Amino acid sequence: MTDPTLTRDVYLGGRFTIAQPRDGYRAATDPLLLAAAVPARAGQSVLELGCGAGTALIALASRVAGLSLSGIERQAFYADLARRNMVDNRLEAQIETGDLRAIPAALRVPFDHVLANPPYYRATGPAARDAGRDAALREETPLSEWVDCALRRLKTGGYLTLIHLAERLPELLIAIGDRAACKVRPIAARQQRAAGRIVLQARKGSRAAFVMQAPLVMHEGAAHIADGDDFTARARAILRDGAALDWD
Amino acid sequence: MTDPTLTRDVYLGGRFTIAQPRDGYRAATDPLLLAAAVPARAGQSVLELGCGAGTALIALASRVAGLSLSGIERQAFYADLARRNMVDNRLEAQIETGDLRAIPAALRVPFDHVLANPPYYRATGPAARDAGRDAALREETPLSEWVDCALRRLKTGGYLTLIHLAERLPELLIAIGDRAACKVRPIAARQQRAAGRIVLQARKGSRAAFVMQAPLVMHEGAAHIADGDDFTARARAILRDGAALDWD
Repeated sequence: MTDPTLTRDVYLGGRFTIAQPRDGYRAATDPLLLAAAVPARAGQSVLELGCGAGTALIALASRVAGLSLSGIERQAFYADLARRNMVDNRLEAQIETGDLRAIPAALRVPFDHVLANPPYYRATGPAARDAGRDAALREETPLSEWVDCALRRLKTGGYLTLIHLAERLPELLIAIGDRAACKVRPIAARQQRAAGRIVLQARKGSRAAFVMQAPLVMHEGAAHIADGDDFTARARAILRDGAALDWD
Repeated sequence: MTDPTLTRDVYLGGRFTIAQPRDGYRAATDPLLLAAAVPARAGQSVLELGCGAGTALIALASRVAGLSLSGIERQAFYADLARRNMVDNRLEAQIETGDLRAIPAALRVPFDHVLANPPYYRATGPAARDAGRDAALREETPLSEWVDCALRRLKTGGYLTLIHLAERLPELLIAIGDRAACKVRPIAARQQRAAGRIVLQARKGSRAAFVMQAPLVMHEGAAHIADGDDFTARARAILRDGAALDWD
């Protein structure tokens, strides 16, 4: 780690490390929640759309061994970081530099799982101070195109797993329509708070009824009081111990 | 109460009574939750689509005085009961017998609030033992037409409040589209359980972000253990004391 613009950060209690830009887009809890929610089993194939530096794919691989990992990332700098992070964590993965609206031929195969953490903010308003961070956070490709691309890449019966702002849930459900059966897990900072995020699971081709799960509550108590870790037991198991976020 | 096919039932700790058929559709907690969720203030106008025997309107009027109450009910028997129940509870209301797909001229005015508890089950499968109960529970009019009718009857800035199965939420959001801003309150039987119902609030013409509220949990504990009332304090306040189900 000689590049002073990068940091190397430890995730899931030391299960893996990620090199990422000091001032650019940096993985916090969302890629870990996303990875925890993917119901993958050994031997299955997984594609991440917009994989950034690879945090979610690597987190998933640290929980489920024997996956075939693929990712596509529009920003070459982050795609390069993802390739490097795979090597550093002794993983093999096919990381393509490219736009999800023009998927490279190498990835035009059916996957068991597609995951994505699309940009949260619409392409309006002032830009972030860092161009790479800005491109990771602001939505140039409409959310409905992320959904379309993901569903096209899935086998029938395969699972799309997405994390996004709770306020974008209606758009997501409208984009999915009747092409997949959805389950939603709201993510709330605290008990009795509205959800800030949602994790959505969409099973391609299924006609099962929509399910609104109980929220995953991240922090104990009604407000932030003490310094340090006030994670709930469930959040800590996912973010520190690499537990799955289950769907039952 | 001389008709042996009717019962007279006490709601909200004695705040009102409802005459309803012994063997037909009988109001349980859903009309009370629906009424508790309507953000009406004195002086406003309220329309219920499919008002049945009037339970939700009367529950709402018992919490908020000075409302102008209207309802439409397709089944003449229930519309007659609603009129009778209004009188018995010393309320004035305009109850029309008719189909929401052909709203009578008297109700073709803009309302501050529309509420509805549409049939929960699609118009397939075996019929219930009672024809009136069957008509109340099975969906002959598509859910999207309930939504269209409700939004047409609202003033800009007015509120639609609906209770329905949680599994129908995607259809509701798709039907509403960008015509209203929605908040959803999941209703779960117990902590950590998926929601069985949702209460949805849609504000006509608003561009506010979608909100996924924390669930209202109805019962204490992880499972039904003791006989009798195991309501949570919040559920008891709504179902026994006539408290509002708030949206913040």
